Amino acid sequence: MSASLVGSPILPESIRSRRPTKKTLSLKSMATCVENSRTETPRKPNSSFEADRQDDSLSQFVKFSRPSFSDLLSCSPSKPQTLISQDSETPSPYLDEIWMEIRKQADRDAEEEPVLSGYYHSAILSHDCLESALAFHLGSKLSTPSLPSTTLSEVFLSAFMADQTIRIAIREDLKAVKERDAACISYVQCLLNFKGFLAAQAHRAAHHLWENGRLSLALVIQNRVSETFAVDIHPNAKIGLGFLMDHATGVVIGETAIIGDNVSLLHNVTLGGTGKDSGNRHPKIGDGVLVGAGTCILGNVKIGEGAKIGAGSVVLKEVPAKTTAVGNPARLIGGKDNPVKMTKMPSFTMDHTSWSDYVI
Amino acid sequence: MSASLVGSPILPESIRSRRPTKKTLSLKSMATCVENSRTETPRKPNSSFEADRQDDSLSQFVKFSRPSFSDLLSCSPSKPQTLISQDSETPSPYLDEIWMEIRKQADRDAEEEPVLSGYYHSAILSHDCLESALAFHLGSKLSTPSLPSTTLSEVFLSAFMADQTIRIAIREDLKAVKERDAACISYVQCLLNFKGFLAAQAHRAAHHLWENGRLSLALVIQNRVSETFAVDIHPNAKIGLGFLMDHATGVVIGETAIIGDNVSLLHNVTLGGTGKDSGNRHPKIGDGVLVGAGTCILGNVKIGEGAKIGAGSVVLKEVPAKTTAVGNPARLIGGKDNPVKMTKMPSFTMDHTSWSDYVI
Amino acid sequence: MSASLVGSPILPESIRSRRPTKKTLSLKSMATCVENSRTETPRKPNSSFEADRQDDSLSQFVKFSRPSFSDLLSCSPSKPQTLISQDSETPSPYLDEIWMEIRKQADRDAEEEPVLSGYYHSAILSHDCLESALAFHLGSKLSTPSLPSTTLSEVFLSAFMADQTIRIAIREDLKAVKERDAACISYVQCLLNFKGFLAAQAHRAAHHLWENGRLSLALVIQNRVSETFAVDIHPNAKIGLGFLMDHATGVVIGETAIIGDNVSLLHNVTLGGTGKDSGNRHPKIGDGVLVGAGTCILGNVKIGEGAKIGAGSVVLKEVPAKTTAVGNPARLIGGKDNPVKMTKMPSFTMDHTSWSDYVI
Repeated sequence: MSASLVGSPILPESIRSRRPTKKTLSLKSMATCVENSRTETPRKPNSSFEADRQDDSLSQFVKFSRPSFSDLLSCSPSKPQTLISQDSETPSPYLDEIWMEIRKQADRDAEEEPVLSGYYHSAILSHDCLESALAFHLGSKLSTPSLPSTTLSEVFLSAFMADQTIRIAIREDLKAVKERDAACISYVQCLLNFKGFLAAQAHRAAHHLWENGRLSLALVIQNRVSETFAVDIHPNAKIGLGFLMDHATGVVIGETAIIGDNVSLLHNVTLGGTGKDSGNRHPKIGDGVLVGAGTCILGNVKIGEGAKIGAGSVVLKEVPAKTTAVGNPARLIGGKDNPVKMTKMPSFTMDHTSWSDYVI
Repeated sequence: MSASLVGSPILPESIRSRRPTKKTLSLKSMATCVENSRTETPRKPNSSFEADRQDDSLSQFVKFSRPSFSDLLSCSPSKPQTLISQDSETPSPYLDEIWMEIRKQADRDAEEEPVLSGYYHSAILSHDCLESALAFHLGSKLSTPSLPSTTLSEVFLSAFMADQTIRIAIREDLKAVKERDAACISYVQCLLNFKGFLAAQAHRAAHHLWENGRLSLALVIQNRVSETFAVDIHPNAKIGLGFLMDHATGVVIGETAIIGDNVSLLHNVTLGGTGKDSGNRHPKIGDGVLVGAGTCILGNVKIGEGAKIGAGSVVLKEVPAKTTAVGNPARLIGGKDNPVKMTKMPSFTMDHTSWSDYVI
Repeated sequence: MSASLVGSPILPESIRSRRPTKKTLSLKSMATCVENSRTETPRKPNSSFEADRQDDSLSQFVKFSRPSFSDLLSCSPSKPQTLISQDSETPSPYLDEIWMEIRKQADRDAEEEPVLSGYYHSAILSHDCLESALAFHLGSKLSTPSLPSTTLSEVFLSAFMADQTIRIAIREDLKAVKERDAACISYVQCLLNFKGFLAAQAHRAAHHLWENGRLSLALVIQNRVSETFAVDIHPNAKIGLGFLMDHATGVVIGETAIIGDNVSLLHNVTLGGTGKDSGNRHPKIGDGVLVGAGTCILGNVKIGEGAKIGAGSVVLKEVPAKTTAVGNPARLIGGKDNPVKMTKMPSFTMDHTSWSDYVI
C-alpha cells in the first residue's frame, strides 16, 4: 500500500494527550473543496459567512463552521486528483493518496456496474475531498424526514474541517479496516459499505461537537448512529486512531470509556458502566487490544495493552497487558499466576480462537 | 424533580390487573391539542369524523380514533403551557409538568443550537401535548417510502389518546430513564434520542392495537420498531410502568412475556420462548428486576421481584425474589441453598457488577 | 397447508451441489408479471431491451436482466390468481399457491384495516407475482436518499428472475417461518414483517450477483441489509433452503460460511471467521441444525447434521451430528465420550431449552 497523506502509518501519541501535531494535513487543499465552487458559481459576499470565505488564510478556514453543502457538490470533479490550492500554482506537498485511490476505485466500479453509476457519482465522484464525500454519505444514511441529509452533511463536514485529528483518524481507520478485515476488498468499499467505519467517523464528529459544548447536536448524532448502524457510542467517549469495529452491530461504548490506538472490536461488544451515578464508570482499553464478539466489559476496569478478550466473555476486572482472557466469568489463559503472554498485537492478527482448551 | 401529572411516582397495581384508575389525565386538556386547531383553521363538519369532533364530551373524544395530524401541527404553540381547556376558563387541575419542562428544554436547546431549530420546532415546539410530539417523532422515524410518516403518526396518536394507561406509562418511562440512566441529561433528550424509550412507547401503541383486534397494524409497528431501533417486542407482550431499556439494541421480548413495574433491561436481553408450539412459553419478570446486557432468559420461567441477572447469563429456570443470578448456566450468588438477598431494588441502583467472585 | 408450487416440501439435495432441477417453476407464468403490463400500457420496442421482451421464449426471459419496475406496478391485479400464460389459453401446470394465499390474506387484511390499504396495495396487491412484490418491498425498505427504491427493486427482481434456486428458496423459507415460528400467523405477515426472512432473500439476490462477478452491487446490498435489518451476511456465504432466522437482529455470517438445508438460527448468532488472512475460515453448518440466541461459532469448524447449540454458547470446535452443545466453552450434553443423541431435527422442533442440568 502506498504511503499516505498522514505520514507514519501509526501515530504514537496516546489518545489521552493527543493534539494535532506537525503532521499537518494540507488544510488549503481541503479548502479547495469549497474554493473551487466559488470559481464556478460566483456568489455575492453579502454576509459575514461570505466575508470569512473571502479570506484564504488557514485560520479563517478553520473558523468557517458551516459551509454550504451544495457548494461542494458542484465542485469540479477533475481538481481533487491534483489538490492544487487555488491561490498558487504550487502543488500541495501532501497528496491525499487514499482519496485518489478511492476515486480511482469508484471510477472503475461505476464503469463496471452502471446500475450504481449515479450512486458512485453522488457519493464519491462529485466530491473534491474525502471529508466531503464522507460527510455527504453519512448525511444521506442518517437522515430522516425531520432531519434532512443536507443539514447533517453540513454538520459532519464542519466538524471534519475543524478538527485535524479527525481527518487523520478517518485515514488511519480506513487503513485499519483494509489491513485487518480479510473481507475488505478496497478502500471505496470500506467508505461506502462498512457501517463500523461509518459509525466511528460519525462518532468522531459527535465527539468534536460534545467537546465544544454542542451537546444536543452531539446527542442527535449518537441517536441516529445507534438507529442506523446499531452502534451506540456516547459522544464523550474517547477513541484512538486505527480503530476497527468489524460488523459492528450491537456495539455499545459508554460515556467515560477511553479506547487507545489500533484497537479492534468485533460486533456486539459492550464497554459498559455500572450504577446510576455519573462519574468515571466505563472501561479503559489499551493500545492494540482485540475484543471478541458478544463480550461485555463492565465498569471502570483497565484492559492492558495488547490484551485479547475472547468472544462471549464477561469481564468485570482488570486484564493485564498481552494476556488472553476468555469465558464467563473471564479467566486468563495459562492461569492467574502465570498467564501466557502474547508477542504479537492481537488487534493486528485478528486471531480470536487460538486457545487450545476450548472444549467440546 | 417536580411532581408530575400522574400523581404518585410509582403506581402500585400489578400490570396484570392494571386498569386506568382515578388518577385521570386531563383528557380535556389533551383534547385541546385538537380543539385549538379548530379555532385557528376552521373546517366544515362534512363527515361523521368531523361530527364526532363537534362533540366536546370526553367519551366522544376517546372514540375519536383518527385525528388529522396536520391539525396538530398547526396548533398554537403558546397554548399548551397553560393547558386551559377550551370550553371553560378554569385551568385544568392537572398541569402536565413533564411536557412543560420538555418544551422549556427544547426552547433552550433550539436557541443554543440553531442548526437544530427546525428539528426542535417540528418534533416538539409545534405540538400542543406530549402525545402529539411523541406520535409525530415516532411516525417520522418509523416511516418508509411505502409507509408515510403521517399515517404512522396518526396511528400512534390515536392509540395514545384512546388509552390512558399509555399516557401514564409515557411519563413514568421518561422518569425512569432520567432517574436511572446516568447518561440522560434531560427529558427532551430522552424523548428525542433514547431509542429504548421510543421503542417502548411504540410497543405500547402496538399492544393497544393488538388488544383491540387490529393485528396487522400491530405487526407492522413491531416490524418497523425492530428495523429502526433493533428492538423486537411482540405486540401481545405486557409491560409495566417505569420501564427502562438502556441502549436497547438487540432486545427481544416474546409473545407471552409479562414484565412488571420498574424493570430495567440492558441492551441485547432476550425474553425468549422455546418450541414451535404456541401457548404460554415466555418469561415472567417481576417488579424491580434488573437484567444485564446480553442475557437470555428462555421459556415460561419466573424471575422474582427485585432479582438481578448478571450480564451474559443464560437462565432457563426460576430465579427467586431479591437474589442475584450470574453465568452460563446461571447460578445464584451465595449458592442455591442460601442465596444472598438484596435489600435495594436493583433496577433502581442499576448496579450490574457487585459480585466479588467474578474471577480473572 | 396446501401443496405448493415447488413440489416436495423439502428439497433433498445439499446446497453444496445444488442446481435447479426438474422441479421447474413456471417461468412463463412469472413472465406474465411483465407481459401483462404490455397489453395494458403498450410501449414501442425501440431498444434491444424491448426487443428481448418481444421474445416470449423462456431463455430470452432469463437473459432479460433489467425489467422496468414501473411496468410491474401497472400489472392487472386480477391476473395472477390464474397465472395463465399470455401466449396460450392453457393454464400453467404450476399454480403458485403460496402467492395466491398471500394475495387472499392481503385482501382480507386490507379490508379489515383501511389505514393499511394503500400499503397492502403497493406492497402486495398491485403485483402479479411473489417475486415482484418481494422485490418492491425490499427496495422500499433498503432505499436511502442516494439509493432510490426503484433502482434497488429492479436489481432484486432481476436477480430473482434470473435464478430459479432463489425462487424456490423464497417459498421454502416462507414455509419454514410459518411452520417453525409459533408467532407467525400468516404468509403475508411473514413477507411484510419478518426481517429475518427479508434479509435472507436480499442475501440470496446479493449471492447471485456475487457469483456473477457483480461485487460492488452485492456489497451495497449486504451493507443496506446490515443497516436496515441488523443482519450482516457476506454475499459469498452459501445458504440452503428452508432457512429461518428468528428475530434476526445481530446475526453475522462470514464470507466462507456454508449453511445446509432446514437450518434455524435465532437472533444474534455469529458464524464468524478468525485471523486477518483470507481463505476458508468460517463455519460449515449441517442440515437441520438449530443454533440458539447469542451463540458464537468461530473458525472453519463443522456442526454436524441435526445438531443443536444452546443459547449463549461459544463454539470453536466440531460438534458431532445429532448432539447438543451448550455453554462457554461449549460442552456436549451427556459428555464428550457418550453424548446424548437426538432423534428429532432440532431446527424443526425449535426446542432450545430441554437440557435438565441448567442449574440455578
